[in-house]
Amino acid sequence: MNTDKSPLKSALQAIAAQVEQAMQAELQEHLAAADPLLKEVLHYSLFSGGKRIRPVLCVISARACGRDDSALYSLAAALEYLHTATLMHDDVIDHAPLRRGRETTVERFSLADAILAGDWLHARSLYLVGRLTAAAGLEVFCRATEGLANGEFLQKRLAGDPAATEADYFEVIRQKTGNLIASACALGALYAGARPEQVAALRRYGELVGMAFQIVDDLLDYTGKGAETGKELGNDFREGKLTLPLLRALAAAGPDERQAMRALIAGDRSQPAAVTQMTVCIAHLGGFRSAAATAREYIARAVQELSGLLAAPASAAHAALLQELAEYILIREK
Amino acid sequence: MNTDKSPLKSALQAIAAQVEQAMQAELQEHLAAADPLLKEVLHYSLFSGGKRIRPVLCVISARACGRDDSALYSLAAALEYLHTATLMHDDVIDHAPLRRGRETTVERFSLADAILAGDWLHARSLYLVGRLTAAAGLEVFCRATEGLANGEFLQKRLAGDPAATEADYFEVIRQKTGNLIASACALGALYAGARPEQVAALRRYGELVGMAFQIVDDLLDYTGKGAETGKELGNDFREGKLTLPLLRALAAAGPDERQAMRALIAGDRSQPAAVTQMTVCIAHLGGFRSAAATAREYIARAVQELSGLLAAPASAAHAALLQELAEYILIREK
Repeated sequence: MNTDKSPLKSALQAIAAQVEQAMQAELQEHLAAADPLLKEVLHYSLFSGGKRIRPVLCVISARACGRDDSALYSLAAALEYLHTATLMHDDVIDHAPLRRGRETTVERFSLADAILAGDWLHARSLYLVGRLTAAAGLEVFCRATEGLANGEFLQKRLAGDPAATEADYFEVIRQKTGNLIASACALGALYAGARPEQVAALRRYGELVGMAFQIVDDLLDYTGKGAETGKELGNDFREGKLTLPLLRALAAAGPDERQAMRALIAGDRSQPAAVTQMTVCIAHLGGFRSAAATAREYIARAVQELSGLLAAPASAAHAALLQELAEYILIREK
Repeated sequence: MNTDKSPLKSALQAIAAQVEQAMQAELQEHLAAADPLLKEVLHYSLFSGGKRIRPVLCVISARACGRDDSALYSLAAALEYLHTATLMHDDVIDHAPLRRGRETTVERFSLADAILAGDWLHARSLYLVGRLTAAAGLEVFCRATEGLANGEFLQKRLAGDPAATEADYFEVIRQKTGNLIASACALGALYAGARPEQVAALRRYGELVGMAFQIVDDLLDYTGKGAETGKELGNDFREGKLTLPLLRALAAAGPDERQAMRALIAGDRSQPAAVTQMTVCIAHLGGFRSAAATAREYIARAVQELSGLLAAPASAAHAALLQELAEYILIREK
């Protein structure tokens, strides 16, 4: 499929390949004396067709701020390690059978393996960040990881609660997804020794891109093609996560529609019919369209943060790639 | 009970109280905006009557190397955070109902809470270590936490395997317990700006003390008073962990006894009668006595590592406390 090979995709795939090489080399060296099953679990979890969004953003951010050397790819790897660690733990918590179209780590191996290998990756990622970006980077990164856990608590608290607001939703996705993607960009900039205002601008770019990414994820959870997302549809609804499309539909609903939707939320959400009815309801009330418009706004705001980098000849090409990447997020299908 | 209040215990309790104050202050400030349930889970898990061995060792090590200020107690807190995080995850993996005489975090709250709050503590501990001891400390600490996960994999691989050797056992306890206690001492020394040979000596002291501590733990798992350890007896055997008393008994057994013990290992270990029979067997074959003798040897070697500090007037009193603490580990009953 040559149409798939846009210049953007080629550029991103080239960076992702460099990050994967760094991961392979790093693991081979560092796991030389490790237990064979730990190695197997880590390889299974890390090389499973992930999109590598976080490490790629880290690399482009560093390049945009003027630095590109071999250790940058170890720093980028740290972001994928942490992301993978959180997915492994999330899948334990959610008893998720599938991710990216194949068995989750907990399903393929065991609860113990998924928890422990996740802890290993967590430690390794923090070590790499501390070594490569010192205290300033470690602070950014650790606060993001604390925010991830805190965001999960918040999300759990809100599950199935019809009083959950849009502000709650945005706070959850900021902590769960925005923070870490913001860190990816900020760490790349810190690694490159960027000026504080550049670090801050890339941090905000990352946060906005991350939130848009999550909004699109939440849209695809209802409307995606299962074969492409590699997950079952309607998971969020089944778990009681009231994501933006549903919240927008609720806000647009008349009294009767709202009552019907609340009954679906309070009812047996595991029924396939309930997912279907809710999906139809949201579509009818414009919830998907409205959520997509918000994702577009976030991306537009993210791109504005790049104006300084786009204006400087030395960074313009990299910043243009960040812009394209941000805009691509809106049309992704998996 | 005045007999309990030896000068050693008073000294240790005073340090533990300072560490707990630092933990309370640190959490209050840092968790101000966190989810209320996260706060509750963290407080439940962190303030549950732990012995605070790791932070206390960190503090005494730093004092022995000439530094004692308020941030030292935050560094010490980081060691308790990480230790608690690993216990929370271990209890999820082992489905353990009780620890320290009360419900484990996973039992009291939920699987999600125990995993996520553990992750939060993990991140927080690494952040504190990175901030207070820079890259050198972070490397020591992260390698210890990677070793913890790797040691669990190794232990799982060996579970119920009658071919497991003493060398395997010592490798597991070095990774699972020796490493982190070694880090506690090394980090205290690094924080104090100690000379490399002092850091190394305290590191080895901590590793040996940690391994002796684990051997005693493994003894108490068979012979302890349930009310004092706060755990069920015979857990290790039920889980197929072949600890030192059992390995020593196997080595001392004649062919018939060995066959009987192997049958118990391969049989239904969850039967109370199986635990009792194995305990009697080990006692009869001198396995407990032999394991206790090894713990004593480790402590003697640990104390030897203190010779340099004991000889210097400025550090002698602190080193003497480390010596007493090491020797106390041999007679603890919980």
